[in-house]
Amino acid sequence: MALSTQPYKGARDFYPEDKRVQDYMFGVLRSVVKKYGYLEYDAPILEPLDLYRAKTGDEIVNEQVYSFVDRGDREVAIRPEMTPTVSRMVAAKRQELAYPLRWFSIPNLWRYERPQRGRLREHWQLNVDLFGEPTLAAEHEMLLILDDILKSFGAKPEMYEIRLNSRLFMNFLLSDYFGLGEVQVVTLSKLIDRMHKIPHSEFVAEVDTLCTPSQRDAQLPDKILSVLSVGDIDALPPEIGTHGSLIAIRHLIALLNQAGILNVRFDISLMRGFDYYSGVVFEVFDNDPENNRSMFGGGRYDGLVGLFGVEPVPTIGFGMGDVTLRNFLEAHNLLPRLGSEIDALVILVGDVYAQAQKLIADFREMGLNVAVDATDRKIGSKIKAADKTGVRYVIFVGQEELDTEQYGLKDLKSGQEEKHSSARLVSIIKDYRK
Amino acid sequence: MALSTQPYKGARDFYPEDKRVQDYMFGVLRSVVKKYGYLEYDAPILEPLDLYRAKTGDEIVNEQVYSFVDRGDREVAIRPEMTPTVSRMVAAKRQELAYPLRWFSIPNLWRYERPQRGRLREHWQLNVDLFGEPTLAAEHEMLLILDDILKSFGAKPEMYEIRLNSRLFMNFLLSDYFGLGEVQVVTLSKLIDRMHKIPHSEFVAEVDTLCTPSQRDAQLPDKILSVLSVGDIDALPPEIGTHGSLIAIRHLIALLNQAGILNVRFDISLMRGFDYYSGVVFEVFDNDPENNRSMFGGGRYDGLVGLFGVEPVPTIGFGMGDVTLRNFLEAHNLLPRLGSEIDALVILVGDVYAQAQKLIADFREMGLNVAVDATDRKIGSKIKAADKTGVRYVIFVGQEELDTEQYGLKDLKSGQEEKHSSARLVSIIKDYRK
Repeated sequence: MALSTQPYKGARDFYPEDKRVQDYMFGVLRSVVKKYGYLEYDAPILEPLDLYRAKTGDEIVNEQVYSFVDRGDREVAIRPEMTPTVSRMVAAKRQELAYPLRWFSIPNLWRYERPQRGRLREHWQLNVDLFGEPTLAAEHEMLLILDDILKSFGAKPEMYEIRLNSRLFMNFLLSDYFGLGEVQVVTLSKLIDRMHKIPHSEFVAEVDTLCTPSQRDAQLPDKILSVLSVGDIDALPPEIGTHGSLIAIRHLIALLNQAGILNVRFDISLMRGFDYYSGVVFEVFDNDPENNRSMFGGGRYDGLVGLFGVEPVPTIGFGMGDVTLRNFLEAHNLLPRLGSEIDALVILVGDVYAQAQKLIADFREMGLNVAVDATDRKIGSKIKAADKTGVRYVIFVGQEELDTEQYGLKDLKSGQEEKHSSARLVSIIKDYRK
Repeated sequence: MALSTQPYKGARDFYPEDKRVQDYMFGVLRSVVKKYGYLEYDAPILEPLDLYRAKTGDEIVNEQVYSFVDRGDREVAIRPEMTPTVSRMVAAKRQELAYPLRWFSIPNLWRYERPQRGRLREHWQLNVDLFGEPTLAAEHEMLLILDDILKSFGAKPEMYEIRLNSRLFMNFLLSDYFGLGEVQVVTLSKLIDRMHKIPHSEFVAEVDTLCTPSQRDAQLPDKILSVLSVGDIDALPPEIGTHGSLIAIRHLIALLNQAGILNVRFDISLMRGFDYYSGVVFEVFDNDPENNRSMFGGGRYDGLVGLFGVEPVPTIGFGMGDVTLRNFLEAHNLLPRLGSEIDALVILVGDVYAQAQKLIADFREMGLNVAVDATDRKIGSKIKAADKTGVRYVIFVGQEELDTEQYGLKDLKSGQEEKHSSARLVSIIKDYRK
């Protein structure tokens, strides 16, 4: 039986035209984060499963992680996220490294999920992390970078919105202000995370269900629903609106406004899934009504490096997935048309392979990316194949051309064909590339 | 108990200084293969295990592949090599693609091996493949690229040697000329592969062992040992030296010599491990007496795409591993010193965070990679941390600097400190970067 030609379910083959788009996207990501002084790192795609048991969250570890036992009886996982890995690497050199430490990576990550729009089993994710900056400058920088990345792709402010919340505030709100018990806090947190994905009536019913009879008697469900429906930070009841954790949020919004970033607001329903977040959390939403969802996010997670038995370090970071980003860029028509990376295809006419080598080497020396068709097919088939690849120019080299040092250059777009010296050919082709 | 900070056994963490070296190496690889018209592709790191059962070779599949059963009961493998994947991708679009098709990739590959010099469980490997070129032009191009890559890293011809053989020739030699049976051919092939890694006496004994009594009576062991000891293609006995498959080898050597590549020779002991090779095979050896081993290799494998139930396509390719390449470059002192990618660190003096934002944004706008230290540590600690990162310049920004628009620039290498306008600062820093 013939082998299947399909890639593994939920993962993508990147044919050159797809890889080209990925390269373009990653190129923009790299150039923006490098402007902010971030350095790229990488790590093995396999990690001990224990690394995720600690803080990634039960649902992911039990239901979504690709894990297995290796030939040496170790429980290993294909990384579902990069944050535990980067924390491990910082912990390993906790004393040697200089802070503030700015690192980024674009790893591929795996999760066993039902493939759907924006979610695949394998995706790439820009991870940007800043270690050793305890002040709000860290939060501010993360948001500047996120905004800068989107603008560098050509996005306009009306296409997206930055939303902020604080885990400290939510802890205060749920435990102290609402007076919920530990289990109730977890239940309500998960419920808030789904708040805008389920019908409002279902949300109301579940809030009611999680409360005890005496809490219900005290009208707690109404209080919860009322606070969670507040859209504006300044509309919160004063006894919670003045909580210290919100000073940070207000200050951040002011700093961003100062830089001309106005599409930013407080969002009380913003929870983020990971257990390790400890302070400000943020997400970027797509404003497209067809795709009004959270695209990227992150937050402060000061406790993670300390899990490796070293002194903790204040940390903040965010992730940006390639599938989501590409969907956003396509939906808003922001992906440029990228031409072939091959500058020209040399078609050999007659038995001139050995003789043409010097010329071909010269083209490459002069900076052209040149492919050669030395097959013995008819010239017509060769031109047809060239056209299929998207290459713009074909150069014909036969005995006469080698003797006269004048080579045929065919522009596959215009159909024009002219004879030129090799230097002139190179200059024409380079001009087009610019 | 604290979590371990070590990476998975036999795999590497790439801290920014290591990632920088990898980026440099991969940058050279990419630029060379693109000159020859190759386009980059990529694919999921997980593949069905069946993909390797077909042709990768039993030892690898049974002893070295990372395989497991996924949550959907599929037998999957973490790819141990890229050739089956690229063959699958070509087969999937067999009719749509234009030939000759030139593709490359730099995937990470996994094998469960005892980690040792030059061999790790995870490594990256440049894979260069040419589909649809049945003539010797394909072999020639592979060898030109291999040679060009090494020269582009600054390698001299005396540092390495290109060796060639032909599977067709070896099939003829072992089956027809020696008259060995099928099992004997496999045994002798594996033995030849180990020929230069085991003591000669052991090799002689094993050749003797694999022969039957009647073959021994006919002096076959002596004949085998005598032929296998031939170093020069022209010193082969005429009844085998004139075999058709050797015309290709002679022609290739002549073409390479014409291009000034003289460090190339026929090597009868060159087998290559994979079962799928079907024609010319080649390897590049390190001439360093400390590390006189095969570094990279490849060959023609015309039958692989056909395994997917489509029309076969003539194919040739090679692989070049990053661990081996880095060892070679280090041993021959060919790795350049790479400076920090951060151009300058801005140290804020006093409470000027909000006020300094415009200036910092301007630096980035003008093309500098600028990190900021906004922590409230003493200036001395900040400079010490900057020095540790390897950054060359520190820019001091306090209230006075903002008022006068003259900023302190400290050159951490010379220790000199001067005040300049922001435009002048940027120009000094850019000059250094060149």
